[in-house]
Amino acid sequence: MSTPAGAPRVCRGIDEFRAALADRLGAAPERAPQEQTSRQQVSQGQASPGPASLGLVPTMGALHEGHGHLVRLARQENTVVAVSVFVNPLQFGPGEDFERYPRTLESDVELLARFGADLVFAPSVAEMYPGGEPLVRVTSGRLGSVLDGASRPGHFDGALTVVNKLLNITAPPVPAAFRAYFGEKDAQQLLLVRRMVADFALPVDVRPVPIVRDDDGLALSSRNRYLDAAQRRSALVLPRTLRALAAGELDLGAARRRIDAEDGVRLDHLVVVDPRTLVPVEPAPGALALVAAHVGSTRLIDNLVL
Amino acid sequence: MSTPAGAPRVCRGIDEFRAALADRLGAAPERAPQEQTSRQQVSQGQASPGPASLGLVPTMGALHEGHGHLVRLARQENTVVAVSVFVNPLQFGPGEDFERYPRTLESDVELLARFGADLVFAPSVAEMYPGGEPLVRVTSGRLGSVLDGASRPGHFDGALTVVNKLLNITAPPVPAAFRAYFGEKDAQQLLLVRRMVADFALPVDVRPVPIVRDDDGLALSSRNRYLDAAQRRSALVLPRTLRALAAGELDLGAARRRIDAEDGVRLDHLVVVDPRTLVPVEPAPGALALVAAHVGSTRLIDNLVL
Repeated sequence: MSTPAGAPRVCRGIDEFRAALADRLGAAPERAPQEQTSRQQVSQGQASPGPASLGLVPTMGALHEGHGHLVRLARQENTVVAVSVFVNPLQFGPGEDFERYPRTLESDVELLARFGADLVFAPSVAEMYPGGEPLVRVTSGRLGSVLDGASRPGHFDGALTVVNKLLNITAPPVPAAFRAYFGEKDAQQLLLVRRMVADFALPVDVRPVPIVRDDDGLALSSRNRYLDAAQRRSALVLPRTLRALAAGELDLGAARRRIDAEDGVRLDHLVVVDPRTLVPVEPAPGALALVAAHVGSTRLIDNLVL
Repeated sequence: MSTPAGAPRVCRGIDEFRAALADRLGAAPERAPQEQTSRQQVSQGQASPGPASLGLVPTMGALHEGHGHLVRLARQENTVVAVSVFVNPLQFGPGEDFERYPRTLESDVELLARFGADLVFAPSVAEMYPGGEPLVRVTSGRLGSVLDGASRPGHFDGALTVVNKLLNITAPPVPAAFRAYFGEKDAQQLLLVRRMVADFALPVDVRPVPIVRDDDGLALSSRNRYLDAAQRRSALVLPRTLRALAAGELDLGAARRRIDAEDGVRLDHLVVVDPRTLVPVEPAPGALALVAAHVGSTRLIDNLVL
């Protein structure tokens, strides 16, 4: 078993990855995870100190410190940590940035060595979809057709289709706890993954990880690298407006106007919703404020619990 | 472990069923399946004499000898055999026979004792869909929208949604081969399940089982019990016409006219298709003839490889 400090093994093929998983899980020493799980986690049933456990972090690569938090939590909670790196064509619409989405596997693997991953699953599109685009897919229903789903038709169906497949590929072939890690920045995706896991009876615990922000408050995103310096400054209107909304300094209408008034920023939506149903509610503690906006040609999202 | 001749254990809850599966698989003696698998099966990689293996037969109950063939094959090939009995509301359309579909669990369990099942999973609708109808579902795409899917909109989406969930629930929690058994009478369903298993990377071998016919040639179906004596005689036009088509005695037009001319029978479709794509082809050896018709108010299907 590679140590957290060593380079992770990169697998390109599904069969190779599954064999490596079985090998690592079988070879995992009978010990608690690298760091003890907290009493709170155990009492919530979110972690068990079994002899082997597997954490999966699904990513599209172009890794940053936000992914680092996901992988480090997986490292704390599991004996084996796998990270998938796959830019999934199904979740990009026509005219979106599938072609130019950054592909930086070499530096991703270097980062993953630091973050503590054991295995990297980096399949080609042909490996994941050998017959072309899949005929049978996951559909996300009403929860996937509002907000980001309204702006990006088919996006969540594509995202759930690949997450379901990645979970099936990665599910431990030997008795072991199985956890998958998703960032809270993609709040609607996280909600839909939770629903899918429940609706499909997938044998995995979904573990949410809080948003990581740069010092200036901008939520980390692989797409931030599209921004030039002026756009980067303009983008700060998103977290600042969310904070003002949470502090009660602005109502929703004023908050929307503030974002739209920012140079080079075009608001897609700013809403306050019930975090379980995505139904709009009056701003109140526990409600979730969600924002999406184009900064130049780059679409950014952010959110904050009020 | 119950012997094939004993009464199977009936589980109503998902957790209870999964615990029973783990128990039976762990307790399964290290032996080859009850009957040796044939050399042909082994050479096709369809059966392995591992220490434990699990066969699942998904059904809607109202069992008959056609199901018997499925369960007996599962019994031959696996150390543990589970049968699910669940009338899945998602795959019935408005005005279809969900309410009156026969529910005969007591006699089903008696039959399953004879067929050799170890476990029966018979959940309620509330157990399978605790939050009401699932938000996230499986969608069957083009292959699910033609033929029976055109006549029954949403039927295959509903069927795949429950099959996916049943497979996830039943997937062995310990290392074991996993096989699921489907009848060839539901040819389009079988094709779609195969596609789903490939597209979703589900860890299961799909095993097809040939159609079982009564002495008069009618394909066994739970819905045959809806037929009165005269309808039953009329229904024989379906297998007879398929055989005449296969023998080259009728062309497709004449075959359709023959079915439509039968008293009380209303043809839905009679087509000859490529069995992998369901695209219509000229009748030729290896092509698949598919028929669907209403006999009275009962919708029946049948098929035959030419």
